[in-house]
Amino acid sequence: MSHPSFDADVRRVAHLMADAARAVILPYFRGADLGTQSKLAEGYDPVTLADRAAEEAMREILAQQRPDDAILGEEFGHKPGSSGLTWVLDPIDGTRGFVSGTPTWGVLIALSDANGPFYGIIDQPYIGERFEGAPDGAVMTGPLGQRALRSCAPRDLSAAIVLTTFPEVGAPEDHAGFHAVAAKAQLTRYGMDCYAYALLAAGQVDLVIEAGLQSYDIQAPIAVIQAAGGIVTDWRGGPVHEGGRALAAANPDIHAQALEILRKH
Amino acid sequence: MSHPSFDADVRRVAHLMADAARAVILPYFRGADLGTQSKLAEGYDPVTLADRAAEEAMREILAQQRPDDAILGEEFGHKPGSSGLTWVLDPIDGTRGFVSGTPTWGVLIALSDANGPFYGIIDQPYIGERFEGAPDGAVMTGPLGQRALRSCAPRDLSAAIVLTTFPEVGAPEDHAGFHAVAAKAQLTRYGMDCYAYALLAAGQVDLVIEAGLQSYDIQAPIAVIQAAGGIVTDWRGGPVHEGGRALAAANPDIHAQALEILRKH
Repeated sequence: MSHPSFDADVRRVAHLMADAARAVILPYFRGADLGTQSKLAEGYDPVTLADRAAEEAMREILAQQRPDDAILGEEFGHKPGSSGLTWVLDPIDGTRGFVSGTPTWGVLIALSDANGPFYGIIDQPYIGERFEGAPDGAVMTGPLGQRALRSCAPRDLSAAIVLTTFPEVGAPEDHAGFHAVAAKAQLTRYGMDCYAYALLAAGQVDLVIEAGLQSYDIQAPIAVIQAAGGIVTDWRGGPVHEGGRALAAANPDIHAQALEILRKH
Repeated sequence: MSHPSFDADVRRVAHLMADAARAVILPYFRGADLGTQSKLAEGYDPVTLADRAAEEAMREILAQQRPDDAILGEEFGHKPGSSGLTWVLDPIDGTRGFVSGTPTWGVLIALSDANGPFYGIIDQPYIGERFEGAPDGAVMTGPLGQRALRSCAPRDLSAAIVLTTFPEVGAPEDHAGFHAVAAKAQLTRYGMDCYAYALLAAGQVDLVIEAGLQSYDIQAPIAVIQAAGGIVTDWRGGPVHEGGRALAAANPDIHAQALEILRKH
């Protein structure tokens, strides 16, 4: 595969940003002063000094290296561009996991055009793992070295592993849809944040099902999973790169099995 | 603190075992052939070739290095001894996490006498993290180096982070007790297996509450958490090193807050 806007410079700048975010975030992780604040007047939607500092570091790199591209970031919103390309950034996806010390959060970096993301990185700085999906392939580097990413082969839902982050999933109707799928699966696990999508790309699990997502939560996972052979849509089978309810599947067969159930909800 | 049966040889042999388990397990982790079988005729209680091979490797070390100690292991049961000490081993705690590729499983090693565990290791081989609790202190080594373990200071339950592995927790009455505590906490997270106890010892979370545990699931966490300043009991405030329902708390204050709620269930 190839893509008209993908070249070595895209990869270079994306890894520069991921490296910069790692360097900014790790001194905060499990540190004493995260400066955690909740973004909601009611409820708990934490943001830390690390989130903001990491997004600033990535925006600075883009300002120097690719000033014509637009940016959409979780913490600092939209910056227009002229290239037709948008970098979609979530400096810490899974801030609740981050403030709990779990190694399930990640730095999400995607590059998209009008059709959605075509390049993405999921980076887990503490473990030292980076999952990359690009038009020329999907690869991970981590504690055991480098290897190609390949999502798993079809099997029946009754033998499948399903992940989501929160048992409530989203709104009550989202909860019902998710649990209708989970009830037919072999194993359901929670709490993995964006790391769930990385595990799907790595062939470890069959399905990740979430709701209430923003574009910056899902664009990098879409790029990584598609490059690894998987498929990511909304719960009706349509595009999900603008957010909402996501069904990520290791292959078209398990995607169809889950979609048949989710369509009823 | 000191303990009459703790000396440098205990530490040496425990780390030898943890190193051996790492070497045996890592080639299986995320590999193609785990040889996964379910131990239950109905339901799903997976065991892999890695579980068995790692426990065998640890038992071989004990046979050579400390033949007088008893052994209790998840996969190969009880071996009597004459020293009054028992090594309590869980080669892979969190096998469901292991088969899903999550870095939440761990190797658990504890040494106990008639009063319970006084030394323990929680090892996460993939991340390369080792959490040790001993009569002379608690320490972790990991990607960011070595540091002392210290569980967190008291705060109100409304500001606390609570972890458990499965939302159903255990039997229905266990579920009700857990969720009565979780409903009053700031944040509840799932899916961390034994890594939850390591995070508590490391000062990241306030409470870990689980049910249906075996002695080999909880003895190493008890030793690590107690050495880090925390407290682990059952849901009535009594000892839990023989298994059952566990309440692990970062300090006596948050322990009392949770116990008051759990006692009603």
